Amino acid sequence: MDNIKAYIDQHKDRFINELIELLKLPSVSADSTFSKDIINTSKAVKTALEDAGCAHVEICETPGYPIVYGEKIIDKNLPTVLVYGHYDVQPVDPIELWDSPPFEPIIKKTKIHPEGAIFARGACDDKGQMYMHVKALEAMTSTGSLPCNVKFMIEGEEEVGSNSLVWFVKRNQDKLANDIILISDTGMISNTQPSITTGLRGLSYVEVEVTGPNRDLHSGLYGGAVANPINILTKMIASLHDEDNHITIPGFYDKVEDLSAEERAEMAKAPFSLEDYKKALDIDAVYGEKGYTTNERNSIRPTLDVNGIWGGYIGEGAKTVIASKAYAKISMRLVPHQDWIEITELFKTHFESIAPKGVTVKVTPHHGGQGYVTPIDNIGYKAANKAYTEIFGVEAIPQRSGGSIPIVALFEEELKSKTILMGFGLDSDAIHSPNEHFGIFNYLKGIETIPLFYKYFTEMSV
Amino acid sequence: MDNIKAYIDQHKDRFINELIELLKLPSVSADSTFSKDIINTSKAVKTALEDAGCAHVEICETPGYPIVYGEKIIDKNLPTVLVYGHYDVQPVDPIELWDSPPFEPIIKKTKIHPEGAIFARGACDDKGQMYMHVKALEAMTSTGSLPCNVKFMIEGEEEVGSNSLVWFVKRNQDKLANDIILISDTGMISNTQPSITTGLRGLSYVEVEVTGPNRDLHSGLYGGAVANPINILTKMIASLHDEDNHITIPGFYDKVEDLSAEERAEMAKAPFSLEDYKKALDIDAVYGEKGYTTNERNSIRPTLDVNGIWGGYIGEGAKTVIASKAYAKISMRLVPHQDWIEITELFKTHFESIAPKGVTVKVTPHHGGQGYVTPIDNIGYKAANKAYTEIFGVEAIPQRSGGSIPIVALFEEELKSKTILMGFGLDSDAIHSPNEHFGIFNYLKGIETIPLFYKYFTEMSV
Repeated sequence: MDNIKAYIDQHKDRFINELIELLKLPSVSADSTFSKDIINTSKAVKTALEDAGCAHVEICETPGYPIVYGEKIIDKNLPTVLVYGHYDVQPVDPIELWDSPPFEPIIKKTKIHPEGAIFARGACDDKGQMYMHVKALEAMTSTGSLPCNVKFMIEGEEEVGSNSLVWFVKRNQDKLANDIILISDTGMISNTQPSITTGLRGLSYVEVEVTGPNRDLHSGLYGGAVANPINILTKMIASLHDEDNHITIPGFYDKVEDLSAEERAEMAKAPFSLEDYKKALDIDAVYGEKGYTTNERNSIRPTLDVNGIWGGYIGEGAKTVIASKAYAKISMRLVPHQDWIEITELFKTHFESIAPKGVTVKVTPHHGGQGYVTPIDNIGYKAANKAYTEIFGVEAIPQRSGGSIPIVALFEEELKSKTILMGFGLDSDAIHSPNEHFGIFNYLKGIETIPLFYKYFTEMSV
Repeated sequence: MDNIKAYIDQHKDRFINELIELLKLPSVSADSTFSKDIINTSKAVKTALEDAGCAHVEICETPGYPIVYGEKIIDKNLPTVLVYGHYDVQPVDPIELWDSPPFEPIIKKTKIHPEGAIFARGACDDKGQMYMHVKALEAMTSTGSLPCNVKFMIEGEEEVGSNSLVWFVKRNQDKLANDIILISDTGMISNTQPSITTGLRGLSYVEVEVTGPNRDLHSGLYGGAVANPINILTKMIASLHDEDNHITIPGFYDKVEDLSAEERAEMAKAPFSLEDYKKALDIDAVYGEKGYTTNERNSIRPTLDVNGIWGGYIGEGAKTVIASKAYAKISMRLVPHQDWIEITELFKTHFESIAPKGVTVKVTPHHGGQGYVTPIDNIGYKAANKAYTEIFGVEAIPQRSGGSIPIVALFEEELKSKTILMGFGLDSDAIHSPNEHFGIFNYLKGIETIPLFYKYFTEMSV
């Protein structure tokens, strides 16, 4: 593969500049203000796939934002890799905490990224990681070393629940037929210790609304005499955890599998420093479910977090008002076997049942997805591990992630194939946060590792 | 006083139009965006006082927004009435719930106001009620019937805590010397049943900030493993009331006087329909401290209400984020003998003490004020009651209000005089809410009643 490495070295500046151009497009799927930018981004991805050597590329219309599909079939007897990624990005709030504008990418050196990192919304999640696959394809086709067939499916609604992708996958099983699905939308432990994500949590995301009086009231004239929707909402949310931080929704844990002592001991071997973890977040203590370690809490245990809350007067100064309504966005991370639709229903039933008289409560499900586990004896896992080992000099560690890529469970159901999560991001890349970035080192190493995966996967398949 | 009534009849259209012009000025003191408008409003008030017959009017600079002072001294041996009011108004949020723009006043007929009401921010609180006094002065001076001396002190920071007024009053005791203070910034029971507010609650208004991790985090990767500041904030706020809705802050009730059974029985005689109350607010039940009626809960009992809460992602759609910070604005209404500075300190100490490890908490006091009670054997009260009785045909009912006018307790301390709260607004006027309005009937009846107060107060004083 020396010719691929040489090709990457020769073209790396252009690879970086192309990604920077893509990052300038504000493809925020959660906010309809940006719908035109999202369409433009899908067109840019189409062009990029064509330029990289895809023989056929099309923009597939859906009920929502389009999916960019591309393929290069070299021999029907060879295995087919389906690459999935997304071209939409998270919202940028709180915008005031960004050190540079989120859609004006700049390269800065950091302690963790001495070779520089690209700072922009989507730099890591997922434009940067998705674009590694586009450039890896270019490197393979340009050097005549593509060893198998490849298909691309790049969507624009990952950050808002992938509804249109579900619609698309269910209607295109033949088109999407593959032997392995490859996704880079996760992270690795560090730049010297690669890891492969073997488990993902499921997700149920809901919005709740508590309504008290039919209009905002003067808190002096009505304070203490009517149910204040904000106070009630805080009481209701607070009651969703008990004193040990177990979730109190009846039936919530029914399908949660307890890991064996051996499995937990195996997990505990992953390198982890609680002191470094606390220091990096600037907290004096971690916090979570009693009886579990930090790494267990954010991977093998389900959670319930408020992602946003608002109500009443939130401007400058003071206003003595009792709001008519209060709202919260709440998400639950789920573990394998917990069904997100069932959990959403349990939440809704419970949350409505704990509303006191004097208020009404509305629960609106936003989106969700199932959890997923990849077996490490799968040849996809083995090929990925071999590729990482060759590039990084050490074997990859299998890791259960706390995050969710709801579509992975659907792929297995609809396309009958396994997914390999080859992530090159780092925890410190601040995805979903201000100052998101992606290391130049990670970007280029990703482009270098991916062709090796194709090579070993093809060798192990035939 | 027939000539005064005739004068009002003759000029009422102009009186309404002048108020409408004043209401067009967006004097929102809580938002510094409007600072220029506030200054313009103070100038408009100065001109209005001059036009109404004040011999001397000045705009008094303060550390904050100016105070408009005016006076007409006709005889040093006659009593002096000091009129207090405010020209600033509440913020307009939520703006989307207004049926017409808050600073484009319009007159509309309503069920309660068949003669029409002026809809605008500040229509009742307090521009409309303050302007009644300006027009009452005009009516008295124009008809040669001003029976005593009068001073006006109109401030621009009432809705944000009157800090500059405190500064001003402490430095101008001689200038402000008076025999009675007259304020119209409260309400009456109905247009056929006048009432005089004899008690006001005190206030402590604070803002709290809970900080967890030093940046927003991905809820998948960190969810369940670190303290989520929003979840923690809801837990902390929820714990401020027990199951009977008593406030749990240690020492909070120490100075609260329990009313005797007789006093409570007397209070219970005020006309009140719980069914109408619930219907007006569209709620299926009232809610509050166990052991007290609705009217007691919002007048003789202290309260704690969240006036605003915010944190995390509150835009359209979903964002799977754990916020770094969560905030709330919290106010406590206090009853006589509770000292607001002491209560603020108790809150701060308690709130900080209940913060779990993993977060830090900051409590910032906004403003506050003491409660107040006017004795009904005071000649000011008697003069007001006689004036109301003559205009409305029935005696006024003394009432304890749940609201706060923090400055009233200060007036007594610094100026050694009692305050009479002659309110002409109605509960349904939606002050502090969208679609605030003030009845034309109430405005004109106020202008008619005020000169009678001057007359009877002067007669009773000499």
